[in-house]
Amino acid sequence: MTDTIDRVVLAFSGGLDTSVILKWLQTTYRCEVVTFTADLGQGEELEPARRKAELMGVKQEHIFVDDLREEFVRDYVFPMMRANALYEGLYLLGTSIARPLIAKRQVEIARQVGADAVSHGATGKGNDQVRFELGYYALAPDIKVIAPWREWDLTSRTALIAFAEAHQIPVPKDKRGESPFSTDANLLHTSSEGKVLEDPWEEVPDYVYSRTVNPEDAPDAPEIITIDFERGDAVAINGEGLSPASLLAKLNDLGRTHGIGRLDLVENRFVGMKSRGMYETPGGTILHLAHRGIEQITLDRGAAHLKDELAPRYAELIYNGLWFSPEREMLQALVDHSQQKVTGTVRLKLYKGGVHVIGRKSPYSLYSEKVVTFEDDAGAYDQRDAEGFIKLNALRLRLLGRRDC
Amino acid sequence: MTDTIDRVVLAFSGGLDTSVILKWLQTTYRCEVVTFTADLGQGEELEPARRKAELMGVKQEHIFVDDLREEFVRDYVFPMMRANALYEGLYLLGTSIARPLIAKRQVEIARQVGADAVSHGATGKGNDQVRFELGYYALAPDIKVIAPWREWDLTSRTALIAFAEAHQIPVPKDKRGESPFSTDANLLHTSSEGKVLEDPWEEVPDYVYSRTVNPEDAPDAPEIITIDFERGDAVAINGEGLSPASLLAKLNDLGRTHGIGRLDLVENRFVGMKSRGMYETPGGTILHLAHRGIEQITLDRGAAHLKDELAPRYAELIYNGLWFSPEREMLQALVDHSQQKVTGTVRLKLYKGGVHVIGRKSPYSLYSEKVVTFEDDAGAYDQRDAEGFIKLNALRLRLLGRRDC
Amino acid sequence: MTDTIDRVVLAFSGGLDTSVILKWLQTTYRCEVVTFTADLGQGEELEPARRKAELMGVKQEHIFVDDLREEFVRDYVFPMMRANALYEGLYLLGTSIARPLIAKRQVEIARQVGADAVSHGATGKGNDQVRFELGYYALAPDIKVIAPWREWDLTSRTALIAFAEAHQIPVPKDKRGESPFSTDANLLHTSSEGKVLEDPWEEVPDYVYSRTVNPEDAPDAPEIITIDFERGDAVAINGEGLSPASLLAKLNDLGRTHGIGRLDLVENRFVGMKSRGMYETPGGTILHLAHRGIEQITLDRGAAHLKDELAPRYAELIYNGLWFSPEREMLQALVDHSQQKVTGTVRLKLYKGGVHVIGRKSPYSLYSEKVVTFEDDAGAYDQRDAEGFIKLNALRLRLLGRRDC
Amino acid sequence: MTDTIDRVVLAFSGGLDTSVILKWLQTTYRCEVVTFTADLGQGEELEPARRKAELMGVKQEHIFVDDLREEFVRDYVFPMMRANALYEGLYLLGTSIARPLIAKRQVEIARQVGADAVSHGATGKGNDQVRFELGYYALAPDIKVIAPWREWDLTSRTALIAFAEAHQIPVPKDKRGESPFSTDANLLHTSSEGKVLEDPWEEVPDYVYSRTVNPEDAPDAPEIITIDFERGDAVAINGEGLSPASLLAKLNDLGRTHGIGRLDLVENRFVGMKSRGMYETPGGTILHLAHRGIEQITLDRGAAHLKDELAPRYAELIYNGLWFSPEREMLQALVDHSQQKVTGTVRLKLYKGGVHVIGRKSPYSLYSEKVVTFEDDAGAYDQRDAEGFIKLNALRLRLLGRRDC
Repeated sequence: MTDTIDRVVLAFSGGLDTSVILKWLQTTYRCEVVTFTADLGQGEELEPARRKAELMGVKQEHIFVDDLREEFVRDYVFPMMRANALYEGLYLLGTSIARPLIAKRQVEIARQVGADAVSHGATGKGNDQVRFELGYYALAPDIKVIAPWREWDLTSRTALIAFAEAHQIPVPKDKRGESPFSTDANLLHTSSEGKVLEDPWEEVPDYVYSRTVNPEDAPDAPEIITIDFERGDAVAINGEGLSPASLLAKLNDLGRTHGIGRLDLVENRFVGMKSRGMYETPGGTILHLAHRGIEQITLDRGAAHLKDELAPRYAELIYNGLWFSPEREMLQALVDHSQQKVTGTVRLKLYKGGVHVIGRKSPYSLYSEKVVTFEDDAGAYDQRDAEGFIKLNALRLRLLGRRDC
Repeated sequence: MTDTIDRVVLAFSGGLDTSVILKWLQTTYRCEVVTFTADLGQGEELEPARRKAELMGVKQEHIFVDDLREEFVRDYVFPMMRANALYEGLYLLGTSIARPLIAKRQVEIARQVGADAVSHGATGKGNDQVRFELGYYALAPDIKVIAPWREWDLTSRTALIAFAEAHQIPVPKDKRGESPFSTDANLLHTSSEGKVLEDPWEEVPDYVYSRTVNPEDAPDAPEIITIDFERGDAVAINGEGLSPASLLAKLNDLGRTHGIGRLDLVENRFVGMKSRGMYETPGGTILHLAHRGIEQITLDRGAAHLKDELAPRYAELIYNGLWFSPEREMLQALVDHSQQKVTGTVRLKLYKGGVHVIGRKSPYSLYSEKVVTFEDDAGAYDQRDAEGFIKLNALRLRLLGRRDC
Repeated sequence: MTDTIDRVVLAFSGGLDTSVILKWLQTTYRCEVVTFTADLGQGEELEPARRKAELMGVKQEHIFVDDLREEFVRDYVFPMMRANALYEGLYLLGTSIARPLIAKRQVEIARQVGADAVSHGATGKGNDQVRFELGYYALAPDIKVIAPWREWDLTSRTALIAFAEAHQIPVPKDKRGESPFSTDANLLHTSSEGKVLEDPWEEVPDYVYSRTVNPEDAPDAPEIITIDFERGDAVAINGEGLSPASLLAKLNDLGRTHGIGRLDLVENRFVGMKSRGMYETPGGTILHLAHRGIEQITLDRGAAHLKDELAPRYAELIYNGLWFSPEREMLQALVDHSQQKVTGTVRLKLYKGGVHVIGRKSPYSLYSEKVVTFEDDAGAYDQRDAEGFIKLNALRLRLLGRRDC
Repeated sequence: MTDTIDRVVLAFSGGLDTSVILKWLQTTYRCEVVTFTADLGQGEELEPARRKAELMGVKQEHIFVDDLREEFVRDYVFPMMRANALYEGLYLLGTSIARPLIAKRQVEIARQVGADAVSHGATGKGNDQVRFELGYYALAPDIKVIAPWREWDLTSRTALIAFAEAHQIPVPKDKRGESPFSTDANLLHTSSEGKVLEDPWEEVPDYVYSRTVNPEDAPDAPEIITIDFERGDAVAINGEGLSPASLLAKLNDLGRTHGIGRLDLVENRFVGMKSRGMYETPGGTILHLAHRGIEQITLDRGAAHLKDELAPRYAELIYNGLWFSPEREMLQALVDHSQQKVTGTVRLKLYKGGVHVIGRKSPYSLYSEKVVTFEDDAGAYDQRDAEGFIKLNALRLRLLGRRDC
């Protein structure tokens, strides 16, 4: 990679790895590094990242620290929730959905400061490199991308730490040895993978979990909550209106307490291998089931089934990093069109790791007691219609049966 | 309905309703009634049904009482489980999957005894009438179908009981008033709907549940079990080989104890209305999640994603009564083709209503620690390949971005 | 059908059948009949229909004669063309797409004149009854629907003509005997079915065709035309801007001349039987292929493939009469989202029944000579990227191969 | 690429390019080259390739020349035709479908001769490299792949010819300059792309076509033929039974004569760019339409529509080189399951570039004149059933309409 780079925007957490990358970019490309640190609700202070950047010579006006929590939930998490997206039937896509926002903001900053390149700290085996870079290329087709983990020769922990020490980058004690697992966190979830999780037959050790109590340690009494939805988005908990990020944070608290949203998964990465991950999505798990609950009474069957058939594809696109693709946007248009009357209230019981929808109501409910009742329905439904319905649905099967039976 | 009927095979439970139907068929059509009572694991004695039929004048050789439990699980439940079928994202199709087997056996008996008609006790508002009758017509295109609930004038409980009393049919005390809900049961599940469940905002009363303990009353200690799979089907629990029906019964016991498999759902019926049901699928819920667990390491991504995209359609077909349709069979061929190496063991934790996959292993595992590891992988994967992979996946997005950005 | 009807809006062509229906409604229901005659480009005078209605006692203010050609093409044909909809791979849905518009207008008139019912002249075996009535019910859920062909006893041609004569309805000479086939026509197509077409092994006789010359009689010289598209819709032919209906009419002329758009099809009706039809869709056939042509250079692969996968479903919905359904509208939202840059010009050769796209250009073309060229591309594409792309796409297959080979 | 290679199997046409590759492999890798030349019906002599290989020092026992025409049509073309596969709605996949067979045979030979590598002459911009290599890796996960066009420095025509001359490889006169286009041919089709085709607005010059006469020069009289199918595969033309390859060859002759199967397409390559190609698929075009014709009367609607929805996905898999993938095989299992009764005869008219199905019959026809007829059907269909059918299909729309209208 001998391209000349003048200025590069780095997604910078302030941790050891991205600090090493910052220095490596400065020394390898002899270019100016612009740092971008985002608050996506990962639960870490951002000011230390700013100070670290300063210490490593980044100009004041080239240090960007942004609180993106509301944008993250409103424009990324919520649209995805409207689609009921689950990757491989189970995973709520907590890491995948954060990447496009980071990429988008990085590209904006690159435009603002006149940078010709962007860089990230994702490794060469994972999905995140793909998600970052597809985002960059979609939004800035001619930008240069530097992926240090694929380029440099710091291929062992020892080499990395040696580099850090050679460049006066402080190495926290707990980073000296190999970490037993690595994590990613944001307001939607925490994921962990690596080392102690690599044997998929072995149970995930309890110390790996950080966002939820063990269901066995959760309260012995269930908790009942309500969530209000408007046009497919959650807007209130127990009647209290909340902004998207505040609402998700509140659900995370509830989920944490009740041990909700742990997932032990072996999944298929876009880059072609299987990996085993542990996910904690406390609030997102509640939200997902609540959204299904409100859709049950407000969505017509045709709309619901079409959504169900397309949800795996939609989830796959997000997982693969194709948020900024025409096909994801087309599916979003389809999904959003269905949500106009997805308004109402869902009642849920939280208990020992479980989320149970126990009630739902809506001013736009399509559920009709009058039609469904076993009692006399006063003509709302003529049972004799069923005969013709069945007969004509059967006609093709009868013609087939006459041929084949 | 003035067709002349000579002999009709009735799906006969021995309960009040089908006893009334038996008599009504005899008096209305002046035809011979053949009764068919199936043991699908609903947990009721079958001999009383035989005696009742005798009392009502059915000839000895026209009383059919069959234990279909193994066939039910092996040829209906298991193939469906191989597809990971969930109707509307949540429902394990316990009622739907039993209907085609009953229809098939009824048609076989009709052929055997030379009957020209079949009859069932499903009402005119539900899905079951459709499932029974599409089954009949697919397998015996020219058979006559009698659906008393759509034909007779016994439209109130009072009228029904009056008819029973007029014909010396014993009416159990608890059937005199309106039932607060109605149920259907078999080895896979128990469903309840009606009256006390008709307001979807109201929680299902605890007395409606019959197959599972309340999670809150389940043991405080989790239980760990293993399930072995061969070619997509469960074959052993905790290492003990079991026949399909015995295995499902054993899982039901485990599920009952731990309060697993309760579902409160508002669903879309094929006949066009929404209904609210309560389902208990203790063993099936465990099986479903365990099957997903073993597929995680034995199915390739391409196979897994194709299955995920088609599962909603497959589930809809079963729900709508189209088990005996070419499209269900085609999807089954697709699904079954994928299951050849779905062999191995899943470890699960059962706790307070929750089922958690905590380990999986297989002689055919596609999971490769060597490839996925963060450690040095000795050349199993070249991280530099990722750049080309991303670049070409990005190419179309870049061309698009150059046009549209 | 003993409902009391006060006023009914009849879809009235002025032909023998709907004249008989008009009279039959008046005599059977003793209700006021409101007639609605639409010009959808079927190529018939509408004034005779008005006069007939008058003669049969319909009040002046209850005779509606509307020219819906522009609305038909703009709001029904064009949106469908944007989706590239083909039923069963071949049929351009010319009849299906007209029904919802008629139903919509009928319902509007019913509201305007305070009618409590609507009626149509479609038979009980076809799809059109379904399309009309699903439209009525979707737009006016509580309206009463009268389908004379399913109700009356005029089940033979002789009975119908006897009724006509008994009520002084003039019977044209050529309607006295059984017609050798029946037709439906509008600006998009003419369809024929019945009698002489009922043996699917026999070729459709040439005299059945009315909208196109036999390709063998078409000009010996091909004709080259261009069609301009804007946002997915055709707007000009040979550079001349035209309104939707005028444009389709012009394409029909071109198609007629060159024998384009004949289709002999055995199709599956929604009501469960197979039927054999003959379709002539001269302009629509040209439009369909031209639209595919302009999409080839303006749609991204992701968008194009998603559309291709969903087009059969979309076509099925229209065929089945579900234009006014949430799922059709959701798919339309998806399709329309993709058409923003489907702008440009397509060049076509028309010759002896064939339509051949021979050129396409667009200000928004995604085709890049620079990238695709065999010549030196000056770095637009790095061939070495292909290796990584292939390697990672192959990874899962290799892991699979190591297990299974 | 510094791997040590001992023996490599090269897909060798005997033309200039693969001759240069042969020599380049020998000199660059100092390895033994094994040549494999396949007859897939491309219409070239194979013996010259053998002699060339000998001249270039390939051992007698390392020269493989195989006639794969029957296997190609029987095991690749026909299964694909059973699926009605069309890429991007139009392309019959003639090149794509040949690649997996070549890859498979190359891998077999590699095993047989103990080679550790395979090589092909596809460029780094196209799809063929992907198809070859995904095939290799799927069938021989650990094989080494040499793709000279991505590795060497012979990046201009001049350099290539200089290399040839330096190594005594004869350079045909017409290969000295840049070719105006490049072609690929086999029994199913001929494709052309490059240079003179690179402007998608310009018509493909007539001299590019080689497999079909210009429709304008085709006979003025149409020709009627019949094709017999058995279980989805064509088995006879005009009543004469033919082997798969002979049958396709015969259809090619017919198609050539009548100017059938020309296609001018801008398509989306798997590697991310758009390209413009010209295809001639004379026999395949006839076969595709004939197969649709026989399916019209022998496939049930459920089967037909499921196939139609999955066909674009199936086609995409083949186009992308994923023939040897579990998902293609799963879809094939689904498709093949549907073909058991796809037996019968189709009558077609060939005329001036057009193929028109004009008749179809089958001992397994599901078309029933008795049911469909406008005449009295003697009770085969009760028109009153339609009312209930419509009413229940409308129910959800009415509930929706009451909420939303």
